[in-house]
Amino acid sequence: MTDQLFYLDHAAATPVDERVLAAMTPYFSQQFYNPSSPYAPAVQVRRDYENAKSRLAATFGAKGDDIVITAGATESINLALGSTDRHVVTSAIEHDAVLAAAKRHNHTLVAPTEKGIVRPEAVAAAITPDTGLVSVQLANNEIGTIQPIRDIATVVELERKRRLDAGNHDPIVFHCDASQGFGQIDVNVARLGVDMLTLNSGKMYGPKQVGLLWARPGVRLNPIIVGGGQERGLRSGTENVAGVIGFARAAELAHEHQKSESARLQELRGYMQAEFMNAFDQLVMSGHPKKHLPGSLHVSIPGLDAERIVFALEARGVLLATGSACAANKGTRSHVLTAIGMPDDVADGSLRITLGRLSDKATVEQATVIIVEEITRELQRTGRA
Amino acid sequence: MTDQLFYLDHAAATPVDERVLAAMTPYFSQQFYNPSSPYAPAVQVRRDYENAKSRLAATFGAKGDDIVITAGATESINLALGSTDRHVVTSAIEHDAVLAAAKRHNHTLVAPTEKGIVRPEAVAAAITPDTGLVSVQLANNEIGTIQPIRDIATVVELERKRRLDAGNHDPIVFHCDASQGFGQIDVNVARLGVDMLTLNSGKMYGPKQVGLLWARPGVRLNPIIVGGGQERGLRSGTENVAGVIGFARAAELAHEHQKSESARLQELRGYMQAEFMNAFDQLVMSGHPKKHLPGSLHVSIPGLDAERIVFALEARGVLLATGSACAANKGTRSHVLTAIGMPDDVADGSLRITLGRLSDKATVEQATVIIVEEITRELQRTGRA
Repeated sequence: MTDQLFYLDHAAATPVDERVLAAMTPYFSQQFYNPSSPYAPAVQVRRDYENAKSRLAATFGAKGDDIVITAGATESINLALGSTDRHVVTSAIEHDAVLAAAKRHNHTLVAPTEKGIVRPEAVAAAITPDTGLVSVQLANNEIGTIQPIRDIATVVELERKRRLDAGNHDPIVFHCDASQGFGQIDVNVARLGVDMLTLNSGKMYGPKQVGLLWARPGVRLNPIIVGGGQERGLRSGTENVAGVIGFARAAELAHEHQKSESARLQELRGYMQAEFMNAFDQLVMSGHPKKHLPGSLHVSIPGLDAERIVFALEARGVLLATGSACAANKGTRSHVLTAIGMPDDVADGSLRITLGRLSDKATVEQATVIIVEEITRELQRTGRA
Repeated sequence: MTDQLFYLDHAAATPVDERVLAAMTPYFSQQFYNPSSPYAPAVQVRRDYENAKSRLAATFGAKGDDIVITAGATESINLALGSTDRHVVTSAIEHDAVLAAAKRHNHTLVAPTEKGIVRPEAVAAAITPDTGLVSVQLANNEIGTIQPIRDIATVVELERKRRLDAGNHDPIVFHCDASQGFGQIDVNVARLGVDMLTLNSGKMYGPKQVGLLWARPGVRLNPIIVGGGQERGLRSGTENVAGVIGFARAAELAHEHQKSESARLQELRGYMQAEFMNAFDQLVMSGHPKKHLPGSLHVSIPGLDAERIVFALEARGVLLATGSACAANKGTRSHVLTAIGMPDDVADGSLRITLGRLSDKATVEQATVIIVEEITRELQRTGRA
């Protein structure tokens, strides 16, 4: 293995930013007090914690009092979907957490288009009189497609009005898993028009196993984890003070630099895409040509053994994934690629490249050369070049 | 407020040990990879994570494969009690997490003795043919009483045999919340005879919001949080690598020094107790005179306003609690003190002192002088001295 690493898998995990770690560190061994304790140093920790929640919420246009801190996005998603016991509408390309939580309900999976878009019309068609919740991700973790959240919110809003006009008070709420994309695209609950939002610290250069669920006032949550009554009784357990301080700092940094980072990643991605298209006639680009995360690039070469490529690249220091980390773990074909109708031989030849803060012009150029070389070598080896 | 702090509230929170923080730190910004990713550096993170789980489990005589990492003890307790949908037997002096989780079941609360002991006979009497789970804490977080876990395990084991002899295969399992006491007393699943055990990193000088549930093979758990299938499908979400590395190191250190730390704390506690008894004729010692955590001291003076004392002590740098942190937060009287039959005027005059690694001879002596002075001043002020 080479010394230099080219990390192209920011959708799987992000390193904790050094400024985030610096913000967290005092809360491990110095400001370690239980925020529920009565004495002044603990009260100060409580204030710091609540202040961090407020700053965190402000980054997406919300109030600290309306967020519930969870242990990562998966718990947040479980809490969101657990807010109803009625029918759930979601898409076939959601993260495993949404799909698994939806399975606990009577549910309908909306098929995306070939470009990976969840059409508002398709969501509207899936809503039944019993639907209590709609959940659609902001951006796909595999193919990077950005969903028309605002338009889907309008669909849910119309259904809500239709019910109220008919004297029906059965709620219908719209949850959005925004785990991917924060820091790359605009995330604001008012502009998105959602009722609930999931965010994940571990995907935005904050610590892992810290997440949140925002719910607008009026949405009733059912606590999953009960006990001491922390987080307004919605999620018990002594607070992860250091983690939340870190999450808040991470969100602030991501929010503050979103526009410039977005432009920077878009340019790096554009360069890579052009180089790949130049090198391989048979290249398949997946996802939507425009509505995609700036840093996400999903490419396939039919018949290529992507797993072999991942290991060949790893030997040269280039770290990337085939499909999502979750799917990779189970050795099954990605449900996302299946859902967009990708043939198996294309899916098996897919690489997911997700750029981020560890990507700069020089390393992306070097990594691109290495990827082109390794794919070319493999195509030659198998007589397909 | 004075510069020097005397922290006497280790049952509420413990500072992360500097060796623990040192072990964790590389996993934030360097070894940050998703353990589910396929490339070598991520595979190494997976190995480090699994290795940490094994080392952690070894500290209480278990195997890494039989533990589920959770976000703290509260989630662990919810997972344990969620393993059955049948009747639950627990005690009236459990932590709020156990009591809240028990409320989701048909349940019976066993009353403790005046010394705070949960008698095995009382547990036996509360078990019904429908009982699926018994949960009793290892040591009480307020009065420090150590429960006869081994004997209660025998009660459960007898009930299990009785059922099997009658051809009844309805399971009955014994869960023990050992959040308090690890590092002060012996904690070993075989010697305790339990089927499930909860531990909390945040109470043993590890990071907060990291805990575990151990369940012996054969005990079937129902996942609360579903998704990517991490932790053998029992608890989804990208792993808290840094947190678990820290938890393992914390448990190793606590386990390694348990005997000497226990003796050290016992001596400090004995000194404090003697000084208080010497100073105040009316002193009430709560909990069991022998079966208590070495570092826990619960004292009351009838009619004293303990809240006033806590604030007066805080001004002089002495940090301790009235009742538990959870109860303190809600401004209600401690359910533990009520359950042991303590009159209200004694309960309201109660101080909980929990010694730990921040306690040494010099600081305990100084803190003792300050506490005696402040209580004396308050008794004089109210004409009770």
